[in-house]
Amino acid sequence: MLPLQPPSTVYLNGQFISSDKAMISHEDRGFYFADGVYEVVKYYRGNPFCFTAHLNRLQNSLEGVRIRYNKLNELRRIFDQLVETNYLKDSFAGIYLQITRGAAPRIHCFPDAQVEPTVYARAFPMKIYRDEMRNGIRVISREDIRWHRCNIKSIALLPNTMLFQEATEAGAGECFLVRDGFFTEATHSNILFIKDGKLQTHPDSNLILPGVTKGVVFDICRRIGIGVVEAPMKADEAQWVDECFITGTGGEIMPVIAIDGKRIGSGKPGAITRRLQEEFLRITYGELAGEQIVTGDW
Amino acid sequence: MLPLQPPSTVYLNGQFISSDKAMISHEDRGFYFADGVYEVVKYYRGNPFCFTAHLNRLQNSLEGVRIRYNKLNELRRIFDQLVETNYLKDSFAGIYLQITRGAAPRIHCFPDAQVEPTVYARAFPMKIYRDEMRNGIRVISREDIRWHRCNIKSIALLPNTMLFQEATEAGAGECFLVRDGFFTEATHSNILFIKDGKLQTHPDSNLILPGVTKGVVFDICRRIGIGVVEAPMKADEAQWVDECFITGTGGEIMPVIAIDGKRIGSGKPGAITRRLQEEFLRITYGELAGEQIVTGDW
Repeated sequence: MLPLQPPSTVYLNGQFISSDKAMISHEDRGFYFADGVYEVVKYYRGNPFCFTAHLNRLQNSLEGVRIRYNKLNELRRIFDQLVETNYLKDSFAGIYLQITRGAAPRIHCFPDAQVEPTVYARAFPMKIYRDEMRNGIRVISREDIRWHRCNIKSIALLPNTMLFQEATEAGAGECFLVRDGFFTEATHSNILFIKDGKLQTHPDSNLILPGVTKGVVFDICRRIGIGVVEAPMKADEAQWVDECFITGTGGEIMPVIAIDGKRIGSGKPGAITRRLQEEFLRITYGELAGEQIVTGDW
Repeated sequence: MLPLQPPSTVYLNGQFISSDKAMISHEDRGFYFADGVYEVVKYYRGNPFCFTAHLNRLQNSLEGVRIRYNKLNELRRIFDQLVETNYLKDSFAGIYLQITRGAAPRIHCFPDAQVEPTVYARAFPMKIYRDEMRNGIRVISREDIRWHRCNIKSIALLPNTMLFQEATEAGAGECFLVRDGFFTEATHSNILFIKDGKLQTHPDSNLILPGVTKGVVFDICRRIGIGVVEAPMKADEAQWVDECFITGTGGEIMPVIAIDGKRIGSGKPGAITRRLQEEFLRITYGELAGEQIVTGDW
């Protein structure tokens, strides 16, 4: 039994349809092979945030798995319509987009070129993690068991869900992943540290997803004069950092106050993290929505 | 456009239905997260081969990803009925079974306990790779980019499909995977070598799937007095082996005559590989189908 939810309007292969009629072929390669990629874009009161950055990353993902989809220029219109049709224009909405290699008989090699990709998108009210953003979250750490092309935003997310579930059961808000002794990223967010006044995070590589929100944080750092060091952090040296936070489209900038029960810094969200949150708020709620910004609200 | 195929009868969540009506919820975690496992069982003229071994492996996979499915004892009846309903009792059939964590709103942590797994199964005529079995195949090798729980037969097969596609485009029959300098397995088969009269293959671990057909080959080796060494083979030492073959439910025992263009042994299927094929044929076509075995047919 699923929790009862009113049907929404979703997009599937060229059509806007009621979600209770949105069915996928049993032969979809997304269902058989995790043969697809996805993106999540956040809308702030009707305006998509960093749309081009998401679109560029999607293109990289599609190229990374060699899915041919040449209608990227139609996505903005589709997303806008989903936000509007689902009455999400005045709030904070997420757009989930998934593109798979399409439906075809199950053989490992790619199907004939005529097989069209499956394109699925839906809008949803984006939860605001106010308490977590204010008070910070505790996280656990686990071995990074994922594949070696984490720069591709693929739907092969089984390890991510398994590891996030472990965090949930431990009462933690995320699971930090450790590969060869270094933090890579979390199950669905990037990890950033503040040490000696500088921001330190894993460099973009095949081991992490190039975060859009992380990119915004980089921009803010440059603007307000905080140095950025792109270097992996040793897991056993994280206890010496001053601050820690994660970034993601949904959670934006979320302070991390403890890793595996070990306090970070003072055990409270740090001053630079707060400053970055305020600047982020200024950009998203302010510039995008054209509203008065209430800083110091944290 | 899909190639036109007559609809078959498939099994989906308790019902036998026409394949053109078999649709999956857009919220299935198999579609969003690759959150599921699968098995392929081969039927030889109406009789499943190594059914218990497949069932045990399925149970391990389900436990590995913590999907609760307690109707394993119903599967035999479902498989038998699919083979019968689809008129595959007198030939060689495959059963594809996939179990996902079910349909639920997309959040990374596991859904409520009431959410039922999605159970999907279908029967198909199993291709017999007679030429390849007789003449052997050429393979390529690539870096093993998969996750670190390859002992779980999960549907997160995107890397496998990408790498197999590379093999296909290179005119090769499989892609051998190399992790840290050692062969692990191929994209959907195990790799076995013959060296100095002994069989050598990667030990079961989190890096490979414990092959059912490989297990049968082990049994044959024990019976006919061929030593089995479970140790990883260095990729750059494979050129010194005498024979090589892959095993899998579909391809059974398939000789490999070249890796990345480098000839294995004489460049023809080896004598021990042939012997193992004959013994395998004796078991499957003989004992199962109760028929006269024509050995020496290779």
